[in-house]
Amino acid sequence: MKNTHCIPLTVLMAIVFSNSWAQMMKSHQIDDQNRVTFTVNAPNAKEVKIINLSDTLAMGAKEYLMTKNSEGIWTVTTLPCRPGFHYYELSIDGFRCSDPASQQYFGWGKWTSGLEVPSKTLDYYYPKNDIPIGEIRYHHFWSDVTGTFRKCIVYTPPGYDQNPDKKYPVLYLQHGAGESELGWTMQGKANIILDNLIAEGKTQPMIIVMNNGYAARLGAENPHRPSGADNAFEIFLIEDVIPIIEKDFRVLTNKPNRAIAGLSMGAGQAMRIGLSNPNLFGIIGSFSGGHRNFDVMTSYNGVFANDKEFNARGQLLWVGCGELDFLWTGAQNFHSDLTNQGIDHVWDASKGSHEWQVWRHHLHEFGQIVFK
Amino acid sequence: MKNTHCIPLTVLMAIVFSNSWAQMMKSHQIDDQNRVTFTVNAPNAKEVKIINLSDTLAMGAKEYLMTKNSEGIWTVTTLPCRPGFHYYELSIDGFRCSDPASQQYFGWGKWTSGLEVPSKTLDYYYPKNDIPIGEIRYHHFWSDVTGTFRKCIVYTPPGYDQNPDKKYPVLYLQHGAGESELGWTMQGKANIILDNLIAEGKTQPMIIVMNNGYAARLGAENPHRPSGADNAFEIFLIEDVIPIIEKDFRVLTNKPNRAIAGLSMGAGQAMRIGLSNPNLFGIIGSFSGGHRNFDVMTSYNGVFANDKEFNARGQLLWVGCGELDFLWTGAQNFHSDLTNQGIDHVWDASKGSHEWQVWRHHLHEFGQIVFK
Repeated sequence: MKNTHCIPLTVLMAIVFSNSWAQMMKSHQIDDQNRVTFTVNAPNAKEVKIINLSDTLAMGAKEYLMTKNSEGIWTVTTLPCRPGFHYYELSIDGFRCSDPASQQYFGWGKWTSGLEVPSKTLDYYYPKNDIPIGEIRYHHFWSDVTGTFRKCIVYTPPGYDQNPDKKYPVLYLQHGAGESELGWTMQGKANIILDNLIAEGKTQPMIIVMNNGYAARLGAENPHRPSGADNAFEIFLIEDVIPIIEKDFRVLTNKPNRAIAGLSMGAGQAMRIGLSNPNLFGIIGSFSGGHRNFDVMTSYNGVFANDKEFNARGQLLWVGCGELDFLWTGAQNFHSDLTNQGIDHVWDASKGSHEWQVWRHHLHEFGQIVFK
Repeated sequence: MKNTHCIPLTVLMAIVFSNSWAQMMKSHQIDDQNRVTFTVNAPNAKEVKIINLSDTLAMGAKEYLMTKNSEGIWTVTTLPCRPGFHYYELSIDGFRCSDPASQQYFGWGKWTSGLEVPSKTLDYYYPKNDIPIGEIRYHHFWSDVTGTFRKCIVYTPPGYDQNPDKKYPVLYLQHGAGESELGWTMQGKANIILDNLIAEGKTQPMIIVMNNGYAARLGAENPHRPSGADNAFEIFLIEDVIPIIEKDFRVLTNKPNRAIAGLSMGAGQAMRIGLSNPNLFGIIGSFSGGHRNFDVMTSYNGVFANDKEFNARGQLLWVGCGELDFLWTGAQNFHSDLTNQGIDHVWDASKGSHEWQVWRHHLHEFGQIVFK
């Protein structure tokens, strides 16, 4: 990889907390061994813990009991943490809440705390100050399918505004369970990953559309928690989102220039929606998907039953998973079954678990082949 | 006001919590008397309170002690609350934190909880589903003045992308102390207010640029908390932001089409920066500014000492404050002093205190005269 990394780590860390009073109340310090020291001011509490919401290994342990000093300040230093983004929260005598001094991220079905452990080896998801920077747009629209206002996050690449006649390929990119349309930019740094790939000439400029994966039809019995079996999101995406994006943005509208991908729950959505709409989507990306109970002959309405038919339908299938992921076995079996069946696909096995560091990697790899 | 309000209140409330699991864990219910019932699950806590971070009257009382039921669930119902946006937080045995079930807003120097009490009489800050909707852009850029990446929030009006030859007037709009560049859209609903004004023909389409008002020069002794006396934000705005906006967006660059306004701390910034750069800014808006120790002959380098000179410099001055604001006396005296001195200005006295409902009103009024 060409090293265009030209910002000192201290500046990179400052970016995480940039532009806010949160700078003054740093919730944590990270040393050069990636050990995190947390500080919580809760003099009346009897027991304060840091709860690691990511997997056990990500922050060295699943939770850390803090120690109170004579001024009522609780502290703890973790074991070395894996580089990347980790969700966490506080437990104050069993009450779980965000760290008041932390940036907030939407995950686990609520706004919660998170921290970024810097990588000493990777630079593809760090901003560079000598390359063009794309834009993140909050695009609000009325949805007739859900009967509500919705917003999607749209990444427009560098040059989008300066080239008013140019049209771009478009990737619909979905978050995981309990997250929101904000996940891919806030936790995943999708915009920075794309800015870097484009600057290095490793992909062409594209538009990325990120929607909230939860949707319920207008009048649904429980509008607040649509069932996973409900296809409201698929209908919403196809009947509302795609026409709105193709009206409001300059996107190419042919199949090879329209992709769908997602992580975890979003991988399932990408697989289902992509495979059942072969005329719409030319590329499907499954990042750390479940693939449980997969049967190569019958799943997805039997699209994989005939290898020649599938390989001729013009859908590039990209499948990735981390070796430490609790979904690894299912993903590996899925890959084996497809291979044995003669189904063309791209397979990416990487280090890491069910975590954003893996999904950043997936987007970085997928982004280089999606519209080739 | 023309009533274009065509969404039932139930839908409007759903918008606040739209598109997320937070929908399942509603932190509060609001009855038709604007009484708010909070629910907190903290079985081990000895004392749980709702702390009203806005003024005493906004939520009926400064704080509410909650009552625990046999299952460890704490509840309380407030007195009737004023319509509008109110910051709040929880106190769990004295530990102050966000409500885990609440949307998060950046205010009071940290991410904190907030709620929206609906108005039965005002509709100008509610979205309408039958009008064109503008866009909110997160515009990231490198600042040479601060030596950091920064982002500003840019509102582009309906039609911006569809009219690639049209140029627009631009308003630089600042938040208050402890808030961030997100305040005007998240708490203030600036984008919705403008969408509605434009749809009703009460103002022309404009671009609004919202920056974080905290800035420190590269190499400053304390980069995390610049002193109020430091003019780093002014330098940053003039040397970095304005050239970047005028390069990246289609904005008109003459003085009558460039305005600066802000609330509270941002009002002070708008006054200082606007008055000391008369060639740049044709309109200055002070929303609930301090105006303490104001001397009409000497303050702001004596710009008001000569009424004819000031009135001829081509700067429209707009000043507003709420009658319940703790800064009301200073604002009223400022208005009187200007009036006695013969200084042309627009004065807006309204109900309400130092709160977002007043600043929404200010933007709604200011927005109708700013580029007339």
